[in-house]
Amino acid sequence: MVRVLGVDPGLTCCGVGVVDGVPGRPCTLTAYTVIQSDPDDDLAHRLLALDGQLVGLIEQYRPQSVAVERVFSQHNVRTVMGTAQAGAVAILAAARAGLPVALYTPSEVKAAVTGSGTADKAQVTAMVTRLLRLDAPPKPADAADALALAICHVWRGGTRDKVAAAVAQARQRGVR
Amino acid sequence: MVRVLGVDPGLTCCGVGVVDGVPGRPCTLTAYTVIQSDPDDDLAHRLLALDGQLVGLIEQYRPQSVAVERVFSQHNVRTVMGTAQAGAVAILAAARAGLPVALYTPSEVKAAVTGSGTADKAQVTAMVTRLLRLDAPPKPADAADALALAICHVWRGGTRDKVAAAVAQARQRGVR
Repeated sequence: MVRVLGVDPGLTCCGVGVVDGVPGRPCTLTAYTVIQSDPDDDLAHRLLALDGQLVGLIEQYRPQSVAVERVFSQHNVRTVMGTAQAGAVAILAAARAGLPVALYTPSEVKAAVTGSGTADKAQVTAMVTRLLRLDAPPKPADAADALALAICHVWRGGTRDKVAAAVAQARQRGVR
Repeated sequence: MVRVLGVDPGLTCCGVGVVDGVPGRPCTLTAYTVIQSDPDDDLAHRLLALDGQLVGLIEQYRPQSVAVERVFSQHNVRTVMGTAQAGAVAILAAARAGLPVALYTPSEVKAAVTGSGTADKAQVTAMVTRLLRLDAPPKPADAADALALAICHVWRGGTRDKVAAAVAQARQRGVR
């Protein structure tokens, strides 16, 4: 059983989701929330508040690893920058807590939870609701995306670990 | 006399410069350096190393405020993201230390030290060398840019404070 904290980075609204699980089996919801900040507020205050809340959530839920969405080129450069800044704060908060950080692209996350890398937000939310056996979809969508990231890491992380273990075993046996 | 630490954010090479000064008079160089990281290294390690070194420099030089280059749209989205991430780490390090953070656009910095917002890197380096009365130009260019940011903040910060003080005085006298 592994506990993963997923972060869908955003400066105005940052999704956070915590799930417990093992690869290939349904995960269990532990918590989700969004961390919001006022776009009119000072950037330093916004980053400091985000850092403080993420550090608090990591201390409260004590995940074994953190999964953060990898920021990619988007059309709106202003959005990319806020996402990159919030992502950096999340990655740094995890690293300062000594936790391993995994980065996943949006399409890796979509593929992991819906089977399609081009699924839309509604599909991701629907699958997160189903996979975690929730009575109602998690809201807002940023929280659902953070939970999808955490589920993706439970499953993908497991596969990665198995592949790494198989490779290590094969090497020990002298197979390359 | 105010001590300002300037940061020219970059993930691979982050310039840092510390100057002492008062508005309208030449500043004095205290220190400059660059913080480098390996592009092949893990992003979490790179951000953690940058944070650790910036926190160390802030503790060592104890500036009264920190000036960071404001990240703007550039052609290369990958570069923008690294700059935004490194900038977020710098702003957060200053805010966690309780220091005020000022952001300046590249053209504001160029205008402050060369008189032209469209000056090139060589001109900025030449003026930083002259203004700080150095025997040789600071190298690499990222360090010169960080010093230019710090000089800009000493001068502009002073002007801002004077304008704010004048406005406050005028208000007290009932003038609007």
